[in-house]
Amino acid sequence: MISKDSVERSNAAAEATLRADYDALGEHLDRRGIDIAAVKDKVAAYGVAVPSWGVGTGGTRFARFPGTGEPRDVFDKLDDCGIIHQLTGATPSVSLHVPWDDADPAALTAKAEETGLRFDAMNSNTFQDHESHPLSYKYGSLSHTDAAVRQQAVEHNLYVIELGQKIGSKALTVWVGDGSNFPGQTNMTRQFERYLDSARSIYSGLPEDWRLFTEHKMFEPAFYSTVVQDWGTNYLIAKELGDRAHCLVDLGHHAPNVNIEMIVARLIQFGKLGGFHFNDSKYGDDDLDTAAIDPYRLFLVFNELMDAADTPGFDPAHMLDQSHNVNDPIESLMSSAMEVQRAYAQALIVDRTALEGFQQDNDALMATTTLKRAFRTDVEPILAMARLEKGAAIDPVAAYRASGYRARVAEERPASAGGGGGIV
Amino acid sequence: MISKDSVERSNAAAEATLRADYDALGEHLDRRGIDIAAVKDKVAAYGVAVPSWGVGTGGTRFARFPGTGEPRDVFDKLDDCGIIHQLTGATPSVSLHVPWDDADPAALTAKAEETGLRFDAMNSNTFQDHESHPLSYKYGSLSHTDAAVRQQAVEHNLYVIELGQKIGSKALTVWVGDGSNFPGQTNMTRQFERYLDSARSIYSGLPEDWRLFTEHKMFEPAFYSTVVQDWGTNYLIAKELGDRAHCLVDLGHHAPNVNIEMIVARLIQFGKLGGFHFNDSKYGDDDLDTAAIDPYRLFLVFNELMDAADTPGFDPAHMLDQSHNVNDPIESLMSSAMEVQRAYAQALIVDRTALEGFQQDNDALMATTTLKRAFRTDVEPILAMARLEKGAAIDPVAAYRASGYRARVAEERPASAGGGGGIV
Amino acid sequence: MISKDSVERSNAAAEATLRADYDALGEHLDRRGIDIAAVKDKVAAYGVAVPSWGVGTGGTRFARFPGTGEPRDVFDKLDDCGIIHQLTGATPSVSLHVPWDDADPAALTAKAEETGLRFDAMNSNTFQDHESHPLSYKYGSLSHTDAAVRQQAVEHNLYVIELGQKIGSKALTVWVGDGSNFPGQTNMTRQFERYLDSARSIYSGLPEDWRLFTEHKMFEPAFYSTVVQDWGTNYLIAKELGDRAHCLVDLGHHAPNVNIEMIVARLIQFGKLGGFHFNDSKYGDDDLDTAAIDPYRLFLVFNELMDAADTPGFDPAHMLDQSHNVNDPIESLMSSAMEVQRAYAQALIVDRTALEGFQQDNDALMATTTLKRAFRTDVEPILAMARLEKGAAIDPVAAYRASGYRARVAEERPASAGGGGGIV
Amino acid sequence: MISKDSVERSNAAAEATLRADYDALGEHLDRRGIDIAAVKDKVAAYGVAVPSWGVGTGGTRFARFPGTGEPRDVFDKLDDCGIIHQLTGATPSVSLHVPWDDADPAALTAKAEETGLRFDAMNSNTFQDHESHPLSYKYGSLSHTDAAVRQQAVEHNLYVIELGQKIGSKALTVWVGDGSNFPGQTNMTRQFERYLDSARSIYSGLPEDWRLFTEHKMFEPAFYSTVVQDWGTNYLIAKELGDRAHCLVDLGHHAPNVNIEMIVARLIQFGKLGGFHFNDSKYGDDDLDTAAIDPYRLFLVFNELMDAADTPGFDPAHMLDQSHNVNDPIESLMSSAMEVQRAYAQALIVDRTALEGFQQDNDALMATTTLKRAFRTDVEPILAMARLEKGAAIDPVAAYRASGYRARVAEERPASAGGGGGIV
Repeated sequence: MISKDSVERSNAAAEATLRADYDALGEHLDRRGIDIAAVKDKVAAYGVAVPSWGVGTGGTRFARFPGTGEPRDVFDKLDDCGIIHQLTGATPSVSLHVPWDDADPAALTAKAEETGLRFDAMNSNTFQDHESHPLSYKYGSLSHTDAAVRQQAVEHNLYVIELGQKIGSKALTVWVGDGSNFPGQTNMTRQFERYLDSARSIYSGLPEDWRLFTEHKMFEPAFYSTVVQDWGTNYLIAKELGDRAHCLVDLGHHAPNVNIEMIVARLIQFGKLGGFHFNDSKYGDDDLDTAAIDPYRLFLVFNELMDAADTPGFDPAHMLDQSHNVNDPIESLMSSAMEVQRAYAQALIVDRTALEGFQQDNDALMATTTLKRAFRTDVEPILAMARLEKGAAIDPVAAYRASGYRARVAEERPASAGGGGGIV
Repeated sequence: MISKDSVERSNAAAEATLRADYDALGEHLDRRGIDIAAVKDKVAAYGVAVPSWGVGTGGTRFARFPGTGEPRDVFDKLDDCGIIHQLTGATPSVSLHVPWDDADPAALTAKAEETGLRFDAMNSNTFQDHESHPLSYKYGSLSHTDAAVRQQAVEHNLYVIELGQKIGSKALTVWVGDGSNFPGQTNMTRQFERYLDSARSIYSGLPEDWRLFTEHKMFEPAFYSTVVQDWGTNYLIAKELGDRAHCLVDLGHHAPNVNIEMIVARLIQFGKLGGFHFNDSKYGDDDLDTAAIDPYRLFLVFNELMDAADTPGFDPAHMLDQSHNVNDPIESLMSSAMEVQRAYAQALIVDRTALEGFQQDNDALMATTTLKRAFRTDVEPILAMARLEKGAAIDPVAAYRASGYRARVAEERPASAGGGGGIV
Repeated sequence: MISKDSVERSNAAAEATLRADYDALGEHLDRRGIDIAAVKDKVAAYGVAVPSWGVGTGGTRFARFPGTGEPRDVFDKLDDCGIIHQLTGATPSVSLHVPWDDADPAALTAKAEETGLRFDAMNSNTFQDHESHPLSYKYGSLSHTDAAVRQQAVEHNLYVIELGQKIGSKALTVWVGDGSNFPGQTNMTRQFERYLDSARSIYSGLPEDWRLFTEHKMFEPAFYSTVVQDWGTNYLIAKELGDRAHCLVDLGHHAPNVNIEMIVARLIQFGKLGGFHFNDSKYGDDDLDTAAIDPYRLFLVFNELMDAADTPGFDPAHMLDQSHNVNDPIESLMSSAMEVQRAYAQALIVDRTALEGFQQDNDALMATTTLKRAFRTDVEPILAMARLEKGAAIDPVAAYRASGYRARVAEERPASAGGGGGIV
Repeated sequence: MISKDSVERSNAAAEATLRADYDALGEHLDRRGIDIAAVKDKVAAYGVAVPSWGVGTGGTRFARFPGTGEPRDVFDKLDDCGIIHQLTGATPSVSLHVPWDDADPAALTAKAEETGLRFDAMNSNTFQDHESHPLSYKYGSLSHTDAAVRQQAVEHNLYVIELGQKIGSKALTVWVGDGSNFPGQTNMTRQFERYLDSARSIYSGLPEDWRLFTEHKMFEPAFYSTVVQDWGTNYLIAKELGDRAHCLVDLGHHAPNVNIEMIVARLIQFGKLGGFHFNDSKYGDDDLDTAAIDPYRLFLVFNELMDAADTPGFDPAHMLDQSHNVNDPIESLMSSAMEVQRAYAQALIVDRTALEGFQQDNDALMATTTLKRAFRTDVEPILAMARLEKGAAIDPVAAYRASGYRARVAEERPASAGGGGGIV
């Protein structure tokens, strides 16, 4: 952890300016009939999960360029995640990936307590071969033509649930790389039937108070077809499995030009929105920092969430899922958590009564202007004040840099391998 | 109709070459264990519907450049459609669009008999304002915020069913332009609820022996969101309505890069594939001639259809839907009907036993080569022989040009207006 | 024109709030070392041209739903454009389209004076047939295989230049629909050679103090290939023609996912950026209101312009080019002019010294945060104050609605035809 | 090498069928006025280079699933490439990648002689860090902000040229991963200026009889911008550098929907087409087997090449560039080499006189039908006969499988590491 002193020093330098900005924004919002304190309280109560794998430097098939002080194991990762939450106050939970994060449950729980974190959804992994799995996933996992491979993949998922139960998780996220690279390689219908069979086996092992999240993706690692290619197929899975099965929406897993906020609306309407993997993209599954490319799109997603906020039982999971290839992962995750909060705060101040009126009257110009007015409001002072009041940092990146944390862990943690072995 | 003599003259010139090609292909296929006559019989029995609106020259929002002899009304259109079927023997039915083709049912039936045609699915139109409809569809139809507009649109659909019943149609195709141009213009969830309500009213008026086809489209004429934007939403509609509701797949209505044959497979698997609007596209809903841009994609769609051919009750509707901006529409529709037949014939000769074995063994290279081997077989002699044997033309375009049909109708039909009124 | 009283009444209601917001923003910017008055002066001096055709209701190939009070001719259009400039103070010039706007130069000049407007770039039109042009552009214009058609198209462009000279324009914008709908329809190399020949003929008739802008577009109205399909081809044209030939960038004319701001940067670097047609799009050439879909992208374009602002001779033309299908065109154009100003103002307050340092140090997180910080600043008070100070409206849309202008012109101008004649 | 006996046994089983198919095709083509032997001779003389890295199993950022008998070094790779050429007779040369293939020039030359191969273009690698390069390419190479990194990258390219000269190569291919992941991370103009400076340094070291190929790519590994993002930028590079600099077109490096054959036409027209990296893709840079997804597109590319075939000095380089994730790489490369030959043969039999006439007359239907007629001709017997006559295999994949080559090398070559280290 970073010392309280260090954070306070950082905050001291910025507090006066923040208070001036906050007061001015409060007066402005008051003129618009909005209570800034109420917004701030909601923002303060909001949290987004971070992915354990996100604190390591990512890469592409061409290369990986590691940074210094890369986490060696899940415990180092939890240390890094703890820093993110300490400075932003916005990321109270961590999502683990098995087998990467497989460890003694008691040790995990202890470390979580030490770092002030909880465990969010568990992630299984059948898109890579594991040393402890005798059969290969080269040609698929849950939908493999060989029943033995499918069985191995199902058992792995059940194992992940079991581990998750011991550490307080309440959900399993399933993403598979199954698909095909060539027309004809697989019978797409039979493949999906096998997927559904396997998914039913996992679902039947799901504890009563758990949810199952399935994730769709258009392409990569398969390049002709993917077994869960879009929200339509994802919906069919959730529908076939049962009430505790829901669809996870990753913002980068869609075809070009697709209206993602509309997919979110449809899944909400039919009771199947499980949650999000937040990130941003310009081309494919770029896994860039949330809101880095199209912040308005993120706002429009949150606008749908706010529209549905009063639906009974509506409680989608929020998680970051990014690959940090050129930034310090801790900085990117802090920044992205704040971007999610920003979109949330902007969506909170949409004048929904006015909006509904304009929609009813087909006044498209004023309807869209109503959204834009909320979006262009600079809510940064609200976010920063919420952080300050909970003892986090006004400017988390500045506080982090001032703390020397990266240099300190770089001393303890040996350099990790870079490279990329000619996979082109 | 074109004189029998004229067609026979055209065929006489080509018959010897055709017989040589057909015999050689027969021997080749025999070496592959395929009976050419059996394939030919299936091709001869196959038909695809033509759209009545397809025989007029199309256009874009920028301009329309009409040809000569443009049909003035539905009766001229049926004459043109009759020529297409006479020369190809592949288009026994016509799909009407109301109000464009609204006319006395008895006169329609008589004209159909005269031209040797049947009536395929009826199409309603609530994406344009009608003189006889007092309310405007500017802001939507089945999903409009105003109940009176929705009611008007529902009644129009019921009227179209009524007309269709009188002329022997058995299906209604519904495509609407409803959507929005701006974020916030419409509440996407409320809009879809209204759509479903209206669709239920139409469905409740659907005769027992009819099917309802709903059509999805990603964009155009709405440019931010479309109420039935993709197959996922289309599936939800068909599911909500009931067993006689099915999804129509137009090949040009998808996001870039989307695997359309996979969508076809999914809809078949869940019993909701209603049929097709065949055309081709490179960019959006280009409505180009079928297989003009990517013939292998069309083959892959037919490969899915052949894979499901033995499913009880599986009977999707096949229709062309194209816009002919630079070609003589009759020529394009003849050519496209033959391209559909070609893909069908190629899919018929896929070695499915071998394919299944390669799929089971994850032998991707041989599986995809099995498809390619069928695709690269030049089945033209099979198509031409099927035409010759039913009295159609070996080379329909050549026979059509030789017949002087276009010049003849140009004398009777006045020049139509071109232009494009500054809609840019 | 709207009465000064009417505008003043509208402003009176909003002025106190504006002054409070402006003062608060001024203090905030001062803390960031930015002089709000200097930014306001630059914004006040900024203007974007409006397209004469933009004040009529647009449409799609499916339908056009006209509003009331549609302009009947170029003089009505100039009246409407005058209102836009009166209320926003941001659109001092109008771009004409010939033959749509062909009229007596003296009458045009008189009307411009009356409405307080100048004439921006002239637009030729060879994508539609004209009554006065004996040959058709169905198969192309500047690149047609027939030399007579090319000559006709060239002469039309020379005529447009001649008209433009009489009314004070200094540029010609050329966009053609030439291309092809099918592989093989045209020899793409020969077609481009013909285009270049024709373009050289136009260029040779260009007055010394004029610029020629050529516009690229990926597709539509041609759906397989377009003769000027992208910026690469557009650059080659400008390079072949000479120093007064430049490339025009329309934000909606690109392939999906393309990085448009990078294209802007390249054209600037090689001295060939002529200007912009501003609008926004989600799918294709949607021609939606500027910044309606992705406001951050517009900001990034302006960021490139600001980066190059000190380049000697750098003076790109700025014009809106939109199709208003569901909104009152005057409202959309006012709103869009303000969105362009907003992006300009945000780009003005980027801390370029800090940005350059972060770029040099490969500090990607702080570099992108530097841009975001400028983008998320709500500069609306700056824009509104600039308007107030020049006698325009604090809230142009509200002032326009209060003025009753639309109802007034609806009385004078007869209802225009809607429809859409079955071009599907 | 595979024993001659083994190949002959394989051919003996297929020869009679081939001769029957070849004769029938010969008669058919004769009826179309085409001399099959002339086509066969051109096909026999045609060769495409294989990439040394292509004979290893590829992977994605998620995982790599190696096959058996993976090559351990460049000498194993050349053995595998030798097999490909032995069985197809279509791949006489190999393209090396440095440092992956760095080795003693004499040993390379000896091995090439042993395997019957030549060396095609050399490839440099500055998208990964090298053990022998002290500075990292994490933030770029030829366009890095640090002059020392740029110098290191330039020197590496000069070293690759030097190695290439010793082994008889005549071209250098440069592809860099330089770009950015975030708006603002880099000044796109300055970055391209640095790239051009570095490229000039390489070009100045290029031997007089060498060519420099630069390769553009839209995205990956950089996900916001790429320094050589499209053919427009690539053209500017080739133009700036000089006559021996040319553009390389990789079929998978374009934006969605882009008309690639048109880019090929433009580069030919302006004298800057350097050559190809052949592969196929559905989504991005999928690196799938050539013609696996869209065989008609490959044909259309070759149609442009044939159109320009008589241009003096026109001699583009042809190379495969694929990633084989699920297939035996040798099988995929053999199959792909034959697909390239197929497209070439189909393009050879286009009736260019007829095509030109249809183009001149704007007879789009017959023009596109002329291309289709060539494309749908099954030229497989021509390809197979060309192979048989040069002692290669009628069915290379069957002959390869019968030979037991893979099992044999699997005994000599140890299993390689799979995995994928959590780069998600």
